[in-house]
Amino acid sequence: MKEIMGGITAPKGYRAAGVACGIKKENKKDLALLVTAKTAAAAGVYTKNIVKGHSLQLTIENMKTGLVDAVLINSGCANACVGERGYQDALEITSYCAKRLNSNPSRIVFGSTGVIGVPLNKDAIIKGIDACIEQLSENGGREAATAIMTTDTVCKETAVEFAIGGKTVRIGGMAKGSGMIHPNMATMISVITTDACISRNLLEELFRKITDKTFNRISVDGDTSVCDMAIILANGMAGNQPIEAGSQDYDIFAEALYLVCEKLSKMLARDGEGASKLIEIVVEGAGSAREAHEIAVAIAKSPLVKTAVFGEDANWGRIITAAGYSGVNFDPDKVDIYIGDILTCLSGVAQAFDEEKAREVLKKGEVKITVNLNSGNEKDRMWTCDFSYDYVRINASYRS
Amino acid sequence: MKEIMGGITAPKGYRAAGVACGIKKENKKDLALLVTAKTAAAAGVYTKNIVKGHSLQLTIENMKTGLVDAVLINSGCANACVGERGYQDALEITSYCAKRLNSNPSRIVFGSTGVIGVPLNKDAIIKGIDACIEQLSENGGREAATAIMTTDTVCKETAVEFAIGGKTVRIGGMAKGSGMIHPNMATMISVITTDACISRNLLEELFRKITDKTFNRISVDGDTSVCDMAIILANGMAGNQPIEAGSQDYDIFAEALYLVCEKLSKMLARDGEGASKLIEIVVEGAGSAREAHEIAVAIAKSPLVKTAVFGEDANWGRIITAAGYSGVNFDPDKVDIYIGDILTCLSGVAQAFDEEKAREVLKKGEVKITVNLNSGNEKDRMWTCDFSYDYVRINASYRS
Repeated sequence: MKEIMGGITAPKGYRAAGVACGIKKENKKDLALLVTAKTAAAAGVYTKNIVKGHSLQLTIENMKTGLVDAVLINSGCANACVGERGYQDALEITSYCAKRLNSNPSRIVFGSTGVIGVPLNKDAIIKGIDACIEQLSENGGREAATAIMTTDTVCKETAVEFAIGGKTVRIGGMAKGSGMIHPNMATMISVITTDACISRNLLEELFRKITDKTFNRISVDGDTSVCDMAIILANGMAGNQPIEAGSQDYDIFAEALYLVCEKLSKMLARDGEGASKLIEIVVEGAGSAREAHEIAVAIAKSPLVKTAVFGEDANWGRIITAAGYSGVNFDPDKVDIYIGDILTCLSGVAQAFDEEKAREVLKKGEVKITVNLNSGNEKDRMWTCDFSYDYVRINASYRS
Repeated sequence: MKEIMGGITAPKGYRAAGVACGIKKENKKDLALLVTAKTAAAAGVYTKNIVKGHSLQLTIENMKTGLVDAVLINSGCANACVGERGYQDALEITSYCAKRLNSNPSRIVFGSTGVIGVPLNKDAIIKGIDACIEQLSENGGREAATAIMTTDTVCKETAVEFAIGGKTVRIGGMAKGSGMIHPNMATMISVITTDACISRNLLEELFRKITDKTFNRISVDGDTSVCDMAIILANGMAGNQPIEAGSQDYDIFAEALYLVCEKLSKMLARDGEGASKLIEIVVEGAGSAREAHEIAVAIAKSPLVKTAVFGEDANWGRIITAAGYSGVNFDPDKVDIYIGDILTCLSGVAQAFDEEKAREVLKKGEVKITVNLNSGNEKDRMWTCDFSYDYVRINASYRS
């Protein structure tokens, strides 16, 4: 297993492009197209928000077949809450894209991210599809990853290579978010590609399991967008024998996919809007997995914990407080809390610690907070980021 | 029913004081004492956080009798998570206070708000009690209200006067919070006094009902402190016949108490940390009261809604998004959203509106957001505030 350069076009048979079609101002890239030479088995996970963008509604329909030839994503406009025309626009756009690619509209995944309540500029996207097709390239992954960015400050892609049955297999991925799961500008979208041969059912089951431990373990501000999606395509062009459930090949593939999703997840959290640090919240010693998760989420969402980390203030009182209101019933007198490796609270009681050392720990780009409930063997972890002035600045006037 | 000057010492028989005993820096007031000439029937509501401050633990014990002679509150130190000495300190402090007032320790309510994990300066508080007793005054309500402030920028008190059975009755109150329900510095504490004669059971039932619609409908950042409490004292010194359940007197008293709690609640939300505006979130047309409440809470807690209001940006997409992830199952295609009286979304579809007019609405000190689900007759409302740079500044380095 090794990390390699590249992203969605690292595996065999994928080409991509990213262009500026005119949705965003200042000629910024805003349309990405990914095409696979052979139809891919595909699986996806989507926002749980009951309000869903029109492009995503169509994609969820299309994904029922589990077969995908291309993924088209625009940034700058969410295509959400615009009435019936929203779905109609998405249909026309995917139909055009399918026609140009000699595919079927139901094999096109379409994602939109941006402002809610503004209709898509359909003509611009149609022209953009033409431009993308002209520029499709086996080195186009980065262009596509750039075109899906909104307030992201860095382009997010990663890829790994490994062997299955003597064949070289690759998994690549890109993501955008600027923090997971914002409603307007920072819908989280991720596209993963692989040239592995694996059945759609197995892929779906595994992808669900792994996204639950990675993309679903990020929080920037607790807001869940109407357009979130993560999609995986497997086109089989690596030539391996189909991966079987329970085999060693399966384990290797699962490990590789986990690495890609984990890396993209941490990139998303670290690049949360206005973030200066990645925070990992580990909750251990819980009586149940659900309890560990609920406490980790409460801490990861707490604006007070996040502003304290921004201020490099080892304010563990806010951590135990967030655990306390998480809804989980635990014994506060058993709780230990570490900031980095510094013990700040033992059995629910404040410990004397070196504030300067704590500040050193909090100055780093990655901060780990560990809460041990000492009441069982279950654990969980979340990734989040600190809460800064820039978060407020970015979000105070997004539409302007 | 008329609003009058004053706060907790407006009703008959109450004296109060607020002094600087040395917990806070710069000689700021940090200890408040309220004494009633006749023992009061009392009721309270407390934080639901399973981590509870030691002073609050003792108060909850003491309140079981429902009889109170005095309320002592220190700011600057939460007396939480310091181990067994925390409860012991609280016991010794209330015992001293009771001795000085010829009362019983179990009749003293003790509240602490401030940093978690730091022991109380018991000697300072003991001396502070002496100083308070010397300064007790029928005009001391404001001094007490000032002494319980933490990051509050304004002192919060209010009082009303009304007649019951020919007798003049008053209700007064004070509160601190700087936004409800912060874990460290902005624990919400409120003390309400009345000279009405009412049984403890009736008082408790009514107080619970009213706090649920007022103090429990405020959110600043969703964080629930370990020391929150609201206490009401009724000393009967107005001389009215005991208020009976279901009587007209009861209705008058309930209305007056609601007004006092509502006013204090709105003061708390408006003075949320860093806040520049009070936001009222109204959810109507819901299928059930629970659903209306859950949607109102999700919107009130959304950092994206709150930063948009700070930026005076009529970004209703964030409002429908927060409703969508609230966990309530509603039909997005029926939702209408108003910002002030401006319709921004009708039946789930974006409406053209005058952005300049919307900006005018959002420039005001009070902003009302109305979400109509058009699916029933239930409604609810929450008060919150906007999310500003100052929220981050205040919370990034509280302990320093």
